[in-house]
Amino acid sequence: MTVQSDSLVHVYTENGITTVTLNQPEKRNSLSMAMLERLSEVFTALEADEECRVVVLAASGKVFCAGHDLREMREQFNRHEFQQALFRQCAKVMQQVVNLPRPVIARVAGVATAAGCQLVASCDLAVAESGARFATPGVNIGLFCSTPMVALSRNVSRKHAMEMLLTGEMIGAERAEQIGLLNRVVDAETLDETVYSLARTIADKSAYTVKTGKTAFYRQLEMPLEQAYEYTAEIMASNMAACDAQEGIAAFLDKREPDWQDR
Amino acid sequence: MTVQSDSLVHVYTENGITTVTLNQPEKRNSLSMAMLERLSEVFTALEADEECRVVVLAASGKVFCAGHDLREMREQFNRHEFQQALFRQCAKVMQQVVNLPRPVIARVAGVATAAGCQLVASCDLAVAESGARFATPGVNIGLFCSTPMVALSRNVSRKHAMEMLLTGEMIGAERAEQIGLLNRVVDAETLDETVYSLARTIADKSAYTVKTGKTAFYRQLEMPLEQAYEYTAEIMASNMAACDAQEGIAAFLDKREPDWQDR
Amino acid sequence: MTVQSDSLVHVYTENGITTVTLNQPEKRNSLSMAMLERLSEVFTALEADEECRVVVLAASGKVFCAGHDLREMREQFNRHEFQQALFRQCAKVMQQVVNLPRPVIARVAGVATAAGCQLVASCDLAVAESGARFATPGVNIGLFCSTPMVALSRNVSRKHAMEMLLTGEMIGAERAEQIGLLNRVVDAETLDETVYSLARTIADKSAYTVKTGKTAFYRQLEMPLEQAYEYTAEIMASNMAACDAQEGIAAFLDKREPDWQDR
Repeated sequence: MTVQSDSLVHVYTENGITTVTLNQPEKRNSLSMAMLERLSEVFTALEADEECRVVVLAASGKVFCAGHDLREMREQFNRHEFQQALFRQCAKVMQQVVNLPRPVIARVAGVATAAGCQLVASCDLAVAESGARFATPGVNIGLFCSTPMVALSRNVSRKHAMEMLLTGEMIGAERAEQIGLLNRVVDAETLDETVYSLARTIADKSAYTVKTGKTAFYRQLEMPLEQAYEYTAEIMASNMAACDAQEGIAAFLDKREPDWQDR
Repeated sequence: MTVQSDSLVHVYTENGITTVTLNQPEKRNSLSMAMLERLSEVFTALEADEECRVVVLAASGKVFCAGHDLREMREQFNRHEFQQALFRQCAKVMQQVVNLPRPVIARVAGVATAAGCQLVASCDLAVAESGARFATPGVNIGLFCSTPMVALSRNVSRKHAMEMLLTGEMIGAERAEQIGLLNRVVDAETLDETVYSLARTIADKSAYTVKTGKTAFYRQLEMPLEQAYEYTAEIMASNMAACDAQEGIAAFLDKREPDWQDR
Repeated sequence: MTVQSDSLVHVYTENGITTVTLNQPEKRNSLSMAMLERLSEVFTALEADEECRVVVLAASGKVFCAGHDLREMREQFNRHEFQQALFRQCAKVMQQVVNLPRPVIARVAGVATAAGCQLVASCDLAVAESGARFATPGVNIGLFCSTPMVALSRNVSRKHAMEMLLTGEMIGAERAEQIGLLNRVVDAETLDETVYSLARTIADKSAYTVKTGKTAFYRQLEMPLEQAYEYTAEIMASNMAACDAQEGIAAFLDKREPDWQDR
């Protein structure tokens, strides 16, 4: 078990599952510049960390993440460079989640708003307890959730995204599941069991295969059909030449458990 | 209260909410060339109308909108230029709804078919009474709903769109809500209450912020992820420099109501 | 009634409805190179077959389709050219389904996995019996379902696709319907009735109109909104000049049944 912890983020890895916990409950785990820089470092480190096979993104306290730090933003009102840097840093972190070669599962308890909701939408998978709530309430404070909507509108359909963005109102976990923001909603008592069982399932696969697939998934989504097929047919043929495909297929046909080499 | 009315469309604005009512119930509010030209004028006028903060698109009579005017189309069968002009005019009106800097909420009672269904799909939000029904029945008369499908297929998933387009059959309001064409379905008696309460919620936001967000929403949807983030991060930074963001954030932190300047 | 049958695929056309049945139940209807080549020939033939107005894609036995033939793939492990050719051939067949000018309805009984699930996702419409199950389990054997995900991720939302791809687990027909992979789920006893009634409805339309619409549907999906409207407005204007539109509109206004010429 590897632990790296500070006042912003707590990171520990056990049996291939890395839990990254936003660790400023007293600040509602808000995405201050410091928090975003720390998260960026964490994801950069995880990219190279072979111990890590899957990431669970969690938060301590009653709020999952309240979005940006409004006090910090107000203090810097007149510094356009700071605001630019802040939103670019935020967009960078969100894309690090998408581009990380390991799957990231959001474990949502409590409220996820604005960039906090964006963080959930940016994860590959998301599980929430039934009391969790979600909103993109920037419109209420004159600052439309324009970066959060990039992730949100790639998870849910247009009219559902627009309703959240234009009204700024909270939706419950059940509704978030219905519209596609969450994979599963469970009782608070079974949240960890559900999340870590899902993480275990994925951690037990070949890390090479999962990396190949996750990377190709988001790339092919942005291509027209014909190009997507050209690209992925090539990916499949390369994947077939890999150790783990040969081992996996052999194990399947021989009715035994595969022994992954992660390459 | 501002009222502009004629035999085609009724327009009135009250407390920032503009209701645009298709006003030819005897023609099932069909989108004749005259109706489309009138709607285009209305949306052009609303774009410059600062009194208008949100639009409710409604219809008088028992049919919301039956699509194009088949009698008119038949009379012009051999005039390819007329047909071209008609479909271009229709596509123009639909895009005016999408590009209008104010949100447009469809208030659907009765049947919305073909280009009428397209109109609902083109709105940012849509609420219907439980008896409302929807179809893209062009295939039944030899004229596939090819322009309606542009809007429909950007609201609902492929197989659901294809089922409507290939069978031409009606779906009920509940089903339309399930597949993403509607935000909410309510009893006919509470339709206005629901629609105008939603409109009120949006009209009370900063018009500057709503305009910024709606415009960016549809633009970023057509971009790859990285470009969408570059674009919206810049939008957020500019939004932060606006009066209303500074006021909104200050009001939030000071726990008071914001006083919007709409800039 | 036209019948063409061999040990791989059974094809028969009756009253405009062509049923293509995967016919190797003893091999779980797997998509071996031979099966893929045969399917490609069948779809090429159907493209030119004016008797065929709609296609039902079915399978004999208890498994709809188990994806690629793993034994064949293992035998060819070291032949990269074979693997490339196999995945290209598979991508070709899937695109033939999408590009076929007649609608294709999947009739799913039993299990559809990997490229079998892709086949269902590639059809225009899909109906399954309630015991049908779906998975993209490549990740379990070290070979990520990278080509299946092209079709899957164009049917269901990102998080739902990712859950199937990363866990490799089966989902039931009800869940598949909820997330958008299926149009309808019915009891096994009523599967044929439902599928052939849907096929009949479509076969009774003008084949010209259906072809026009299906072709335009997938093309416009890959365009930005403005271009999609330019393209489809032109399609509508041409469609209006066709025999069947003139007949269809006349028949509708005259309250009689249309007599299609399929042009």
